[in-house]
Formats: sequence, C-alpha cells, structure tokens
Amino acid sequence: MIKNIDHIGIAVQSIEHSLPFYTNVLKLPLLAVEEVSSQRVKVAFLKAGNCKLELLEPTSSDSPIAKFIEKRGEGIHHVALGVDNIEERIKELIEQGVPMIDSASRKGAGGADIAFLHPKAASGVLYELCEKVGEENDG
Amino acid sequence: MIKNIDHIGIAVQSIEHSLPFYTNVLKLPLLAVEEVSSQRVKVAFLKAGNCKLELLEPTSSDSPIAKFIEKRGEGIHHVALGVDNIEERIKELIEQGVPMIDSASRKGAGGADIAFLHPKAASGVLYELCEKVGEENDG
Repeated sequence: MIKNIDHIGIAVQSIEHSLPFYTNVLKLPLLAVEEVSSQRVKVAFLKAGNCKLELLEPTSSDSPIAKFIEKRGEGIHHVALGVDNIEERIKELIEQGVPMIDSASRKGAGGADIAFLHPKAASGVLYELCEKVGEENDG
Repeated sequence: MIKNIDHIGIAVQSIEHSLPFYTNVLKLPLLAVEEVSSQRVKVAFLKAGNCKLELLEPTSSDSPIAKFIEKRGEGIHHVALGVDNIEERIKELIEQGVPMIDSASRKGAGGADIAFLHPKAASGVLYELCEKVGEENDG
C-alpha cells in the first residue's frame, strides 16, 4: 500500500521568514520553490536525507493553509505517503470505508498526483497519498 | 547536521484504537511497543519504508502527551531528525542561538539519545534530535 514517507508538509506564515532555520541552522538543501495556484500556496521543498520537508505559505486569505494557520497556528499540516498506482490505492481505501477528502487524484506540487484522506480516518492526522510521475530517483 | 527523518511522533488517546488504521488499512509493519516511563507514555513504532511512525499514548494525565491532546487534540506531535554525535549537534544549535527544551541529551524510546528543540525555533514545529545507538541498519 505505502512505499515511503514522501514528505512532511508544514504550514508557515512566510517561507522567507522560516527558511533560514532549515537552510542555515539545519543545513538542509533547498530543492525547489513553486506556486500551486489551485491551492493558493507557495511551497518550498527541502531535502532531509531520506525524506523531504515542504514549507507551505498561503498566497491568499482563502487558502486552506491560511485557514489552518488561523485555526491552529503554524505547524505540521500533513504527512505525504508515497504510493504507486494512486487511483488503485484510493479505490482500496474507499472499499475499506476510509473517509476521503479526495475520491480521485488531483495535481499537487512538483506535478505529483495527490489525494488527501480525511483526518478522522487517522486520529486527527491529515495524510496525503502522493504519486510521483517520472521521479523515481528523487527520494 | 541532519542525517534523515528518523520518525514522526503522533499523539493518540489509545494505541489500541488507532493502530488498526496503520496495520490493517495502510498495512504498515508494527516494529515494537514499549513504555517510556520517564515520559509517561506508551509508544508503538511502525515502519513506513524509509521512515518510522511513532504512536504516543499517555499513561498518566500529567504526561506531556496528555497535555498536548488536551490542548490541541490528537495529531502530529513531533518530527525526529536523525543525527550522529548528538551532544556536538546540541552544542552547535545553542551556539547559533537556537532555543532548546533539552540542553543535554536524555534517553528516549528504543534506548535512543534524544533532545528537543523549542518549537519557537521552527515556526511552531517541535523537532527532536535523535541518535540511535547500535542501530545503524534499522532505517
């Protein structure tokens, strides 16, 4: 079902403000910065050995990340589980009665196919399924 | 500074209640269950490919995990960063002015040497440094 932990998503007010801790103190390499306009976020990916950290900055007050920060403050937003054949995995979860936010995959950062489980599936943790297309060697 | 993401710590009311999602739905292998009496928690480690998930259940109402759940609900509690020479790493962080919860390492689950950074160091994320002793091939 699950290949690995692809990344940990962290909601921040400002990537500019939060990034120096990761790049200068923890000395993690910055892999990419991009905007995901459908989610109204700017994201920065950092490499942490076997796994990545994804800083998520809202670009609009109606961004899901803006709402998360307003409600809970900055902090860990989701854990992304690497999978193959994401549509099959979604189907299996639905068949097992797992509540899903996304019942079909959509495009996320880095061109990945993603789908979120509902946090009530997992004791309050927001899990994302994440299938990388043509990025076999990035982990 | 950082070797990898060793594990993600998740605060739950009950391991018994939360575990079936991980073992039956996500089909992750259960590695170990143990009690860390100093922290008044029971922990369950699951293997998620390159990384581990650590479910943390409070064993007492004055456990830090009980207080976390009371304040924020169940959910992700911390991210553990794998390091070598933890005392050197702590010293480097302190020299850079990083606020620490632990200014020296202490024993955590699995006999690891651990130290927590203060969440104000990292936009609200609680990071743990984690050095495994004699477990080079477990990750």
